Amino acid sequence: MTTTPSPSNILSKFRQVEASPIFQGAVIAIIVLSALTIGAKTYELPPLAEQSLSIMDSAITLLFLFEILFRFAACPVKRRFFLDGWNVFDTLVVIGSLIPLDNSEAVLLGRLLRVFRVLRLVSVVPELRFLINSLLKAIPRMGYIALLMFIIFYIYAAAGSLFFSEVDEELWGDVAISMLTLFRVATFEDWTDVMYQTMEFYPLSWIYYLTFIFLTAFVFLNMMIGAILEVMSEEKNAKEAQIAHDERDEIVQQLQSVQRKLDKLTETMDRPKST
Amino acid sequence: MTTTPSPSNILSKFRQVEASPIFQGAVIAIIVLSALTIGAKTYELPPLAEQSLSIMDSAITLLFLFEILFRFAACPVKRRFFLDGWNVFDTLVVIGSLIPLDNSEAVLLGRLLRVFRVLRLVSVVPELRFLINSLLKAIPRMGYIALLMFIIFYIYAAAGSLFFSEVDEELWGDVAISMLTLFRVATFEDWTDVMYQTMEFYPLSWIYYLTFIFLTAFVFLNMMIGAILEVMSEEKNAKEAQIAHDERDEIVQQLQSVQRKLDKLTETMDRPKST
Amino acid sequence: MTTTPSPSNILSKFRQVEASPIFQGAVIAIIVLSALTIGAKTYELPPLAEQSLSIMDSAITLLFLFEILFRFAACPVKRRFFLDGWNVFDTLVVIGSLIPLDNSEAVLLGRLLRVFRVLRLVSVVPELRFLINSLLKAIPRMGYIALLMFIIFYIYAAAGSLFFSEVDEELWGDVAISMLTLFRVATFEDWTDVMYQTMEFYPLSWIYYLTFIFLTAFVFLNMMIGAILEVMSEEKNAKEAQIAHDERDEIVQQLQSVQRKLDKLTETMDRPKST
Amino acid sequence: MTTTPSPSNILSKFRQVEASPIFQGAVIAIIVLSALTIGAKTYELPPLAEQSLSIMDSAITLLFLFEILFRFAACPVKRRFFLDGWNVFDTLVVIGSLIPLDNSEAVLLGRLLRVFRVLRLVSVVPELRFLINSLLKAIPRMGYIALLMFIIFYIYAAAGSLFFSEVDEELWGDVAISMLTLFRVATFEDWTDVMYQTMEFYPLSWIYYLTFIFLTAFVFLNMMIGAILEVMSEEKNAKEAQIAHDERDEIVQQLQSVQRKLDKLTETMDRPKST
Repeated sequence: MTTTPSPSNILSKFRQVEASPIFQGAVIAIIVLSALTIGAKTYELPPLAEQSLSIMDSAITLLFLFEILFRFAACPVKRRFFLDGWNVFDTLVVIGSLIPLDNSEAVLLGRLLRVFRVLRLVSVVPELRFLINSLLKAIPRMGYIALLMFIIFYIYAAAGSLFFSEVDEELWGDVAISMLTLFRVATFEDWTDVMYQTMEFYPLSWIYYLTFIFLTAFVFLNMMIGAILEVMSEEKNAKEAQIAHDERDEIVQQLQSVQRKLDKLTETMDRPKST
Repeated sequence: MTTTPSPSNILSKFRQVEASPIFQGAVIAIIVLSALTIGAKTYELPPLAEQSLSIMDSAITLLFLFEILFRFAACPVKRRFFLDGWNVFDTLVVIGSLIPLDNSEAVLLGRLLRVFRVLRLVSVVPELRFLINSLLKAIPRMGYIALLMFIIFYIYAAAGSLFFSEVDEELWGDVAISMLTLFRVATFEDWTDVMYQTMEFYPLSWIYYLTFIFLTAFVFLNMMIGAILEVMSEEKNAKEAQIAHDERDEIVQQLQSVQRKLDKLTETMDRPKST
Repeated sequence: MTTTPSPSNILSKFRQVEASPIFQGAVIAIIVLSALTIGAKTYELPPLAEQSLSIMDSAITLLFLFEILFRFAACPVKRRFFLDGWNVFDTLVVIGSLIPLDNSEAVLLGRLLRVFRVLRLVSVVPELRFLINSLLKAIPRMGYIALLMFIIFYIYAAAGSLFFSEVDEELWGDVAISMLTLFRVATFEDWTDVMYQTMEFYPLSWIYYLTFIFLTAFVFLNMMIGAILEVMSEEKNAKEAQIAHDERDEIVQQLQSVQRKLDKLTETMDRPKST
Repeated sequence: MTTTPSPSNILSKFRQVEASPIFQGAVIAIIVLSALTIGAKTYELPPLAEQSLSIMDSAITLLFLFEILFRFAACPVKRRFFLDGWNVFDTLVVIGSLIPLDNSEAVLLGRLLRVFRVLRLVSVVPELRFLINSLLKAIPRMGYIALLMFIIFYIYAAAGSLFFSEVDEELWGDVAISMLTLFRVATFEDWTDVMYQTMEFYPLSWIYYLTFIFLTAFVFLNMMIGAILEVMSEEKNAKEAQIAHDERDEIVQQLQSVQRKLDKLTETMDRPKST
């Protein structure tokens, strides 16, 4: 009978709208449109198309702002809204688009920020969100291997810079440039050109490259094997232990039933004697 | 005693012929011959050889037409024939070969269509058919990973086109060209040349390339691990669950037998007392 | 007391010598020496060293001949000697070294045959022999995948030769050259150079390269996953089935013992009643 | 009440200090500082910075010396100190830094030795130490595969040097250079340039390259699969056998209890008869 809607009513209605497939679909459509707009801007376009793209860009910015405000309004506990990393990311992208830009430097930054709007697709499609979360979980297990890899690169880069900086300043000038050169060697990108150049001064420098390639490949291979094994055993243990437990449970229960029956039988056997 | 064959008799005879190894072998032989003809045409040949190749080509087209008509005739329910994707593919290839071609453009297209005849080998050899089917089954599980990969490529391509289009129009002109360039970087193909060029204008652009390489390699690696795990657990669960079930079944049956015997024993124990 | 040794005595003595670690070690030492001789010949050497290498070469040939005759003599059933592929290989390498060579063409062939002597190391060291045998066992499971790969290469090569032969005769001249070019593309070796060249004539030819790379990479990846799974399940099934069987056996035996005791008990229960 | 500390007291106090997180943290901080110093030296620096780096370098050398002496002092059994390979490595690096260097050649060697100080990070951080130990354990299982790989390389290098040395002295001059060239081919680094060069003289030499690439890739692939399987089965067997054993134990114990009860029951059944 209440004609004026109560705040909690509005909230639940907001949440209903937010969870509806039409709202979700509309948001995804806008993000894809935004991505297309960004892509279209990289082409040479007639002035009219440029203008319509600018208008569309502003419209998308407003739609994004409206969407984030709506989602914030639909959130029952306002503080929790910003505890979700995806919401923070969405908010930052939208706010970034709203800042007015004047000089050309900032324009470039503003356009870069618009590029990140495409990432909002990940934050909206649940399957992609799940995928990213599971990828993020995979990072820590590679932490110490990455540190070891970095140490190997650093030692080889320092040694390389020490010996080869006179051979080619552009490739071995300092420890940072050397690390970039070594990354190039690790991807096998024209690495023999680098090697042949230093071999003219140090004929034995092939040892440097071969040991580096073997070390990084070996560590990488073991890292990959380790990652496969870890994920596999994790996933399996949980499932297998469950199955094995279920199976055993049935057998153990039957055995306990057998024992109880035996106990009862022994009791009945003993009773007549006692009487 | 019937001298005029009944339609169903012809059908079963057709099917017998179709399933015979001689028919199958003949079809495979014709396809291989067709493949060799296509290969031979790419060489510079004397006019006589060219002519005999053309005759052979027409003969193969006719044989293919005959084979597909025969298989269609042997099919008990005609409608089902076109429900099998392989049959549709075979029919399209054969019909395509029959269309008369005049201008040079269409000739090229006709020759391209003849190239696809080699694919008929896949549709005829059951092992290859099975292989392709199992490959097709592997595609959906890579769907969302592929979408994520595309988003990463798109964002980097948009950013790359934004910043580097002035450096090299041919590599970073628009978002499509940039994606091709990024695919080149992902395959490590002369990627340092691309990097060194942009580093002259943006000295920090190595961050762009390294993060891109790490991201794609990391996502790809996890995709591979995921694919291995999924296939493995799928295949294993079915098999292992079966084995475990069989094993347990025997034990459980024995236990039930024990319980039944105990019940009977208890009954016999109780009876004398009651009497 | 027999002073003249009987043939069977000699045979067993021969086998004793053949199986002794000293004989095995000597053979390995000679093969390694032979490998070093082959390697040394590729360097520019003073005439004296050349001469001593030639003498050493003849000595090794004689030693190899002696060793193979000795092993043949030690073989109890002569016919079986040539049933072992490794023995046939050893014999062929030794016989090939004995053929006198005159003209320069044959000299090159003779030297190539000497290179294969190094492979004798594989036939002599049991661990390497085992490794090669297990690698050979891995080949058939890749058979149909290899055929599929060949079909993909053939179709793309035929199409490539059809369209691109006018662009670059050296890369796309005929179907064989095209397949080599495609193998180059599959190894990512300067594949963009090939692509950029054809894209000048056919701007959409990047589709050709990208689909080819995705197809081959996808088939290869699935082949690898398949190989890992097959070996894994094979090895595991044998072992696991054994373990599971042993485990269950003990439980089943205990259960059968329980049943037997119950049967006996029931019998003793029934007997008093009958008496 | 003892004012003069007993040797064993000092020892235990030393060990306490050594194991304290502050001491460990300080050592790690010094190593990282040492690494930064080494990196900084590769840059062009003003004289003042150069001098302060030299002073810092001497300070780090002294701190390392002090640390190693302290750890040696804290070791209860002195002889055991050098049984740990990590301690020997640390000592060698520190002693090497102490040797005074005069001529420029030795200066380069001295600086190279300082580079190895970074490796001390591995010896100090337990997680990295564990990682390296597990990597070292992975080496022997690759021993025979590595030998097989070397044999393949050697045979192809000898054959390559035999045929192609006249084509390009720099790539195929002798067996050692040829092996380096083949390693380049195995990494797909501009391998078609090498092939096209020899194909001008020997048009069929693509067979040489393709068989080499297939062989090495095939052996490498199988090695990887083997390594994954070995580690997996090792790890799993230990764990799974334990789980299976525990599960079975409970069932077997229950069954034994059932049997004991049955025995007792049979006994009580038999007794009344005998009385």
